[in-house]
Amino acid sequence: MTRHSLYILGSGAAKPSLTRYPSSQLLDMRNRQFLIDCGEGCQIRIRQMHLSISRMNHIFISHLHGDHCFGLMGLISTLGMDGRTQQLHIHAHEALNRLMTPWLKFYCNELPFKVVFEPVPANEVAVVYDDDAVRVTAFPLQHRIAASGFRFDEKPGMRHLLRDVCDAKEIPIAAFNRIKQGEDYTLPDGTVLPNNMLTTNPTTTRSYAYCTDTRYTESIIPHIEGVDLMFHDSTYDDANLLRADKYFHSTASQAADIAAKAHAKRLILGHFSNRITDFEALLAQARSIFPNTDIAADMTKVAF
Amino acid sequence: MTRHSLYILGSGAAKPSLTRYPSSQLLDMRNRQFLIDCGEGCQIRIRQMHLSISRMNHIFISHLHGDHCFGLMGLISTLGMDGRTQQLHIHAHEALNRLMTPWLKFYCNELPFKVVFEPVPANEVAVVYDDDAVRVTAFPLQHRIAASGFRFDEKPGMRHLLRDVCDAKEIPIAAFNRIKQGEDYTLPDGTVLPNNMLTTNPTTTRSYAYCTDTRYTESIIPHIEGVDLMFHDSTYDDANLLRADKYFHSTASQAADIAAKAHAKRLILGHFSNRITDFEALLAQARSIFPNTDIAADMTKVAF
Repeated sequence: MTRHSLYILGSGAAKPSLTRYPSSQLLDMRNRQFLIDCGEGCQIRIRQMHLSISRMNHIFISHLHGDHCFGLMGLISTLGMDGRTQQLHIHAHEALNRLMTPWLKFYCNELPFKVVFEPVPANEVAVVYDDDAVRVTAFPLQHRIAASGFRFDEKPGMRHLLRDVCDAKEIPIAAFNRIKQGEDYTLPDGTVLPNNMLTTNPTTTRSYAYCTDTRYTESIIPHIEGVDLMFHDSTYDDANLLRADKYFHSTASQAADIAAKAHAKRLILGHFSNRITDFEALLAQARSIFPNTDIAADMTKVAF
Repeated sequence: MTRHSLYILGSGAAKPSLTRYPSSQLLDMRNRQFLIDCGEGCQIRIRQMHLSISRMNHIFISHLHGDHCFGLMGLISTLGMDGRTQQLHIHAHEALNRLMTPWLKFYCNELPFKVVFEPVPANEVAVVYDDDAVRVTAFPLQHRIAASGFRFDEKPGMRHLLRDVCDAKEIPIAAFNRIKQGEDYTLPDGTVLPNNMLTTNPTTTRSYAYCTDTRYTESIIPHIEGVDLMFHDSTYDDANLLRADKYFHSTASQAADIAAKAHAKRLILGHFSNRITDFEALLAQARSIFPNTDIAADMTKVAF
């Protein structure tokens, strides 16, 4: 059963193509929406996909190249016109605050909500978001400028109550919440009912890792170990290995290699250069190393 | 015979819709390309229309609301990646320079061409571009912030040579250029051949006026008098007259009224709010006042 959704808004690289806008994704996890990168046209794709983003309060920007953040101003302006009032948090490297603040003051001086910049440390692993259901951890990638990957970890929910057993034991509803949190229950006669008699394990948690833009680097493996879904830079096919290295991007096989070594369960390739013409070949290259690989396409949904 | 082309890249208002991107147009006049406004997604529309913009050296920005200029950074970045070397001139109100310069330094620090900001005076009529074939004049509109309209005037070309007459009189080819410029020709025997015997009038010149965003104002009429093609703000239909006035925009009938009073030859309505659902009705409102009216649509070409 899938429970989370990743909406691919833009799957292209620096220059938009006819079918691929610059980088942007919307992750829907445990009733929270996280926007990941915001290239030009992000708000257009959101509209084209008929997505409501009323629960989107946090945006994560991987790095400050234009194809990952030039859509922010348009999106924020539109949210203002739509009457949004909730704070909007932008998690990004420090410089974005300095760059965007004068623009926000000039272009959005009557914004009905506050934009809060939350610094993402550029060269270290750091928890950048944490609530009772989801934790987001940033980790360094290897790109021409500082770039961060993000891992989204769902936290375990409560244990599932065996309602029939509880009712048979005449346990009052008021006690259910503590039992779901793992406590044993003591009957009026002093008998202790162990928790594992009253509940089953919580739903398995799932995780997503976003790794773009980056050169092949095994340094990220510990940070993405065992993720259920992983997006990795595949700007080039294998024929362009030298080019990938030169521009600090990855090939399809390199992405697959990382997925295999990190024991990821599923890999989505993206951030495709306009040089790529044969996506079948590119996919075959990755699948020969990591079979459960797919190719990102704009305006598609990946459930996991 | 049409000789100029206006490519509508974005015909929407502040918020992009499923079919209309924010404001942007490309004018092709006498082998020059002028970009007029540059809303988010402008570069995407250029690509979708398969337009080459190698002759586009001047961009005119009507005013500094985001839906008219948020596409500049992405467009400039892409031109840099495409290896452009020619200077790019951006004609806009003063503040754009101050706003964009830090972004250009940060995001486009290795740009292989120079971006030159050319100030457009906000509250006066001024020639903002002038070469031997085209002149562009800016004039004030009435909007919530300073906004300028632009009139593009083709200059008269040379007179057309009556080649048969010239050949019969044995006029050497070396003399043709001066004759086309209007000079008479003197034969070796001293006979003067008047210019109108050797040439016909140059091709009639054409003109285009871009008037958005603006409230209904007759103050612009002298500046757009007699234009062949005119684009005018029609953010709302006539039912939203009060709203148009409040937000300093125009209705379809107001746009038509201006076109009629300015003796324009043809009117294109645009900058449509997402509130408009019945474009047939809107068009009928305008045509009842100015019959030669059409509605702008993204990715269409208007020849004139």
